[in-house]
Amino acid sequence: MIKKREKLDVALKKLLKAIKHRTGCEIIDTLDSCGRVLAEDVIAKLTIPPFDRAAMDGYAVKAEDTFGADESNPAILKVVGEVETGEEPKVRVERGEAVRISTGAMMPEGANAVVMVEYTNENENLEVYKAVAPGENVSKKGEDFTAGKIIMKSGNIVQPFDVGYFLSAGVRKLKVAKKVKVAVASTGNEICDVLSSSEVAKIPDSNRPNIISCLKSIGCEVIDLGIVKDDVKEMHKAFDKALNCDAIVFTGATSAGKKDIMPEVIEDYGDLLVHGIAIKPGMPLAFGIVNGKPVFALPGSPVACLITLKLFVYPAIWKLQNTEVLAYPNEVIKAEVERRIPSNAGTRTFARVRLNKDFKVIPVMTSGSGILSSFSRVHGIVEIPENLEGIEAGEIVEVKLTRHLVKSDLGDKYEEDF
Amino acid sequence: MIKKREKLDVALKKLLKAIKHRTGCEIIDTLDSCGRVLAEDVIAKLTIPPFDRAAMDGYAVKAEDTFGADESNPAILKVVGEVETGEEPKVRVERGEAVRISTGAMMPEGANAVVMVEYTNENENLEVYKAVAPGENVSKKGEDFTAGKIIMKSGNIVQPFDVGYFLSAGVRKLKVAKKVKVAVASTGNEICDVLSSSEVAKIPDSNRPNIISCLKSIGCEVIDLGIVKDDVKEMHKAFDKALNCDAIVFTGATSAGKKDIMPEVIEDYGDLLVHGIAIKPGMPLAFGIVNGKPVFALPGSPVACLITLKLFVYPAIWKLQNTEVLAYPNEVIKAEVERRIPSNAGTRTFARVRLNKDFKVIPVMTSGSGILSSFSRVHGIVEIPENLEGIEAGEIVEVKLTRHLVKSDLGDKYEEDF
Repeated sequence: MIKKREKLDVALKKLLKAIKHRTGCEIIDTLDSCGRVLAEDVIAKLTIPPFDRAAMDGYAVKAEDTFGADESNPAILKVVGEVETGEEPKVRVERGEAVRISTGAMMPEGANAVVMVEYTNENENLEVYKAVAPGENVSKKGEDFTAGKIIMKSGNIVQPFDVGYFLSAGVRKLKVAKKVKVAVASTGNEICDVLSSSEVAKIPDSNRPNIISCLKSIGCEVIDLGIVKDDVKEMHKAFDKALNCDAIVFTGATSAGKKDIMPEVIEDYGDLLVHGIAIKPGMPLAFGIVNGKPVFALPGSPVACLITLKLFVYPAIWKLQNTEVLAYPNEVIKAEVERRIPSNAGTRTFARVRLNKDFKVIPVMTSGSGILSSFSRVHGIVEIPENLEGIEAGEIVEVKLTRHLVKSDLGDKYEEDF
Repeated sequence: MIKKREKLDVALKKLLKAIKHRTGCEIIDTLDSCGRVLAEDVIAKLTIPPFDRAAMDGYAVKAEDTFGADESNPAILKVVGEVETGEEPKVRVERGEAVRISTGAMMPEGANAVVMVEYTNENENLEVYKAVAPGENVSKKGEDFTAGKIIMKSGNIVQPFDVGYFLSAGVRKLKVAKKVKVAVASTGNEICDVLSSSEVAKIPDSNRPNIISCLKSIGCEVIDLGIVKDDVKEMHKAFDKALNCDAIVFTGATSAGKKDIMPEVIEDYGDLLVHGIAIKPGMPLAFGIVNGKPVFALPGSPVACLITLKLFVYPAIWKLQNTEVLAYPNEVIKAEVERRIPSNAGTRTFARVRLNKDFKVIPVMTSGSGILSSFSRVHGIVEIPENLEGIEAGEIVEVKLTRHLVKSDLGDKYEEDF
């Protein structure tokens, strides 16, 4: 009998609090890590960029040699060599000298800035028509990240675009939570297997293949226990087989009829936490805890089964891997802008942002598309249309998540947190 | 040289219009079909439910025997047998008779309604305290879907929860678009492979592993061409190897420096459609068409590379499989309600809805969680909070997509379309 319909949020809190079991950790290849939960902070082994490099095509110079230069009064420098991208510089830049350089090339010793080719004229000597400040048009060594620093927090779920990020940081192995092993069964005398579905008076079982596909899609390993009859002895047998898994998901046998014995079976093995919930569809959901592991009796109605799977089983699956997913990639979070997000009118801007602990939006980068970490280290993107020139603090924007938003990774700014 | 910065929408339209190549079709197991694009409408082989069945625990009766019955004047019926779920009925219901029946059990011949057990009292005879209408508390044969009818439109992408739906309809094989084979290369003299990244003056190549992981995550097969030097001959060699693929994705060598030769190489083989686009990051994107297949030169900056991959390459990948994805699962579509969505106050309701051709919201089901098709046949869910009693026509709601929204599947109502 369903005595009380628990509220969704209350029920979910009860569930997550009661799950004490964890799957443990393992070391895997970064190349195979998509969708896995990081079990420790990821530390860069390399520095990127590994050296100061030119951010523009032009001339590597000593900035002080260009001070005061303009169209009518150009600085005159002597070109003493050239550096191509991918080559080590063979020259040094002294006072009064310049070296031809390509975007991405290593800065020669002695130089501290790059004059863009547009502001020069090279004949016998080089004429420079614009002064540059020290560091101008140079990507500094370690600007993206430096060896020894945390480049991703534990609890994050590896996205496809993190793979290149980790690898370029020299991280070829990752410590992740082990996959969650889930035992899945359908219960009921009225259902039959979909792959042999010609038994008279029976309904093909759609729930089991659905649950199995869905759990696999979020990275679970599934132990298929098949169809279990509405019978306490049969249920106990199935349960006994499932106990070494990290979670148990049964479907059917939860509503108020005489055959609805799953909640009782949960009590035979552990604690029944919830039976009946104030959502529609999904009301007859029951779940409990056995040895710190979650056990679900999802409603047998196919839609209610899928909805409660997403609402309750998914969070449990993450908890077993020691993380808490607040939202999924592509979901939209509406939040207040904490600091102005700049953009140029006429250009659609994809501003990379993070959410801080108060769920406010912090722009991380609106330019600097060379900074690899700026994509993996953010939570999502705010799209600013061509007709706007930035978004002011205090406005409400929509952040489209580029990754799973996990509780352990909320924070103002990556640099501050780490 | 980038001459013109094309607008995003204009550029995308150009691209999709120019892609004439398709990957072709193949037959695969339904169990392995997650993420694949349906190449033809899916037709049910079975009818679900396969017979009239009880929707409640109670008594199967002839409705006319209960007409006029109430607490003070119960109908008196003779119980002539019982049907358990999963069993074939061994009795027939005649006038004045009733048969005990469980939820999900096959209706016995002669009966046309079920009286809920709550409204009865069985001693020597059965007293029925409430009249039922013909069909009441009965799930009709074929209520979910019937053999021979289309249950999913071509162009849809198979979701994990479609697997049980198709299998319960007896569909164990599906005709899907072949996977898209994509040749991927990074270009540039300044980059080196991430798995051997210790060359002085070089930057580890993060783009290639990122692109490969992302393309695999949307179901592509990837041919990795490695790193190609900034040299026309080398580029031609790489291109020659890539021509038998369905698409080519190169990164780097697109901006305005002297080494930016990819756009020229595209022109050597086919038509350059766009070079330069009014987005940030992502401006230096170039793409063209070779033999009806798309060829991309993504910007070398890692963030710009990822953003243009999603904005341009992904739509091309779907087009090659003969579909057009308008939005992804978990994305939110704001749209006007065309017909009132009912819900009960006090219960959080997950209403299943479709978007019609005008992008307006049509409720498909707010109750009836037993109807399997109502989850796979809808586009998304509107969550109605406990304090509301339905949402009126004309209001704007947020539809959270449960599947890829594809152009071929927009329409008022599944039944009307098919």
